[in-house]
Amino acid sequence: MNVFIIHAHPEPKSYSSALKDTALNYFENSGNKVIVSDLYKMKFNPVGDKNDFKKLSAEVFFKYQTEQVNASKNDLFSDEIKIEMEKLLWADLVIFNFPMWWFSVPAIMKGWVDRIFAMGFSYGAGKGVYAEGIFKTKKGMLCVTTGGPESAFKENGRNGDIDKILFPINHGILYFVGMQTLPYFIVYGAARLNEVERETKISEYETHLSKIKEMNILY
Amino acid sequence: MNVFIIHAHPEPKSYSSALKDTALNYFENSGNKVIVSDLYKMKFNPVGDKNDFKKLSAEVFFKYQTEQVNASKNDLFSDEIKIEMEKLLWADLVIFNFPMWWFSVPAIMKGWVDRIFAMGFSYGAGKGVYAEGIFKTKKGMLCVTTGGPESAFKENGRNGDIDKILFPINHGILYFVGMQTLPYFIVYGAARLNEVERETKISEYETHLSKIKEMNILY
Repeated sequence: MNVFIIHAHPEPKSYSSALKDTALNYFENSGNKVIVSDLYKMKFNPVGDKNDFKKLSAEVFFKYQTEQVNASKNDLFSDEIKIEMEKLLWADLVIFNFPMWWFSVPAIMKGWVDRIFAMGFSYGAGKGVYAEGIFKTKKGMLCVTTGGPESAFKENGRNGDIDKILFPINHGILYFVGMQTLPYFIVYGAARLNEVERETKISEYETHLSKIKEMNILY
Repeated sequence: MNVFIIHAHPEPKSYSSALKDTALNYFENSGNKVIVSDLYKMKFNPVGDKNDFKKLSAEVFFKYQTEQVNASKNDLFSDEIKIEMEKLLWADLVIFNFPMWWFSVPAIMKGWVDRIFAMGFSYGAGKGVYAEGIFKTKKGMLCVTTGGPESAFKENGRNGDIDKILFPINHGILYFVGMQTLPYFIVYGAARLNEVERETKISEYETHLSKIKEMNILY
């Protein structure tokens, strides 16, 4: 299996980074191939703009999605985008590994989606969405750390239900392009864990990863 | 009333930009003060990182939120962040004006939140959240354009209910720091509107803005 981990944390020694390494090691040690896009390390530019394209179809009015379709048809994406698209095409399993910032992914990861999941490449211009999405043979999974405790992420908790918070990502990003969305792995209140708890959660993540083939699909 | 519009669209002639101008003109013409942060025009850097700070409290392990708290206490935010924070403190009404990209805000706007709504400045380190949030005298509102039609954003539509999609922004960003969250204004399928429809929607937005004082608060 080809595993592609997109990772977004500024600190290599963070717990989020440890989870990324856990998945990397788990899959490599079990005979799979793994590619990691460590977005902070790559200094990935998250701003979708004209610089995404080697050439524009319209110079007067910049319509981002129209240019994405044009670039898809005419091989006009900038090299940094093409490299990420190749990784995505190669992958059987895609893992988004990130700390939850403001009920979502850090901006550097949001921009990776804005730019790489381009119209014409991942959907649109003849390509379907959701059940007809072109990445329907791929699996997608989130691995998330949070600041708040688990109790805050219940339906009656102050933040609201975690499923509701992650819906725009699971449904609106992963499943939108057809991916089979796996149950996510969350470490709540990561910064407040002690050493034993941190190690326990790493073990739980390894167990989680070992069960991927038998998991039910969320979307 | 002091109105602060945060705008995120790469094309100044886009419909999203026209909505931004509509609000700017409406409020200025009705005797209010308006500041716009046009993030693409400003080439705003959305990547929250060490560059947010003039000095770090810890050089060995970078914990973003801890550095935000330290910078809040010791006036160590970089100038570009301090300028945006001043605008936010000044505002009575904050409008997020953006095209919906991947069920959320464009990365450049997500990064504005990641960096400006800093821990210690907008919450935490003694400052509360939600009903106890420090910005509870401010109003917050979203003005959104979408690619898909309105029917796709119903509970049984393929994208799911718009309230559910916007929950992480309305609840998790605006209300998290205490803002009174106003009913949002949405233009569905903006790129597919004809000239008459575009003008009608602009008028509807002006009407929407005229009713802000009597609106019910969502959160």
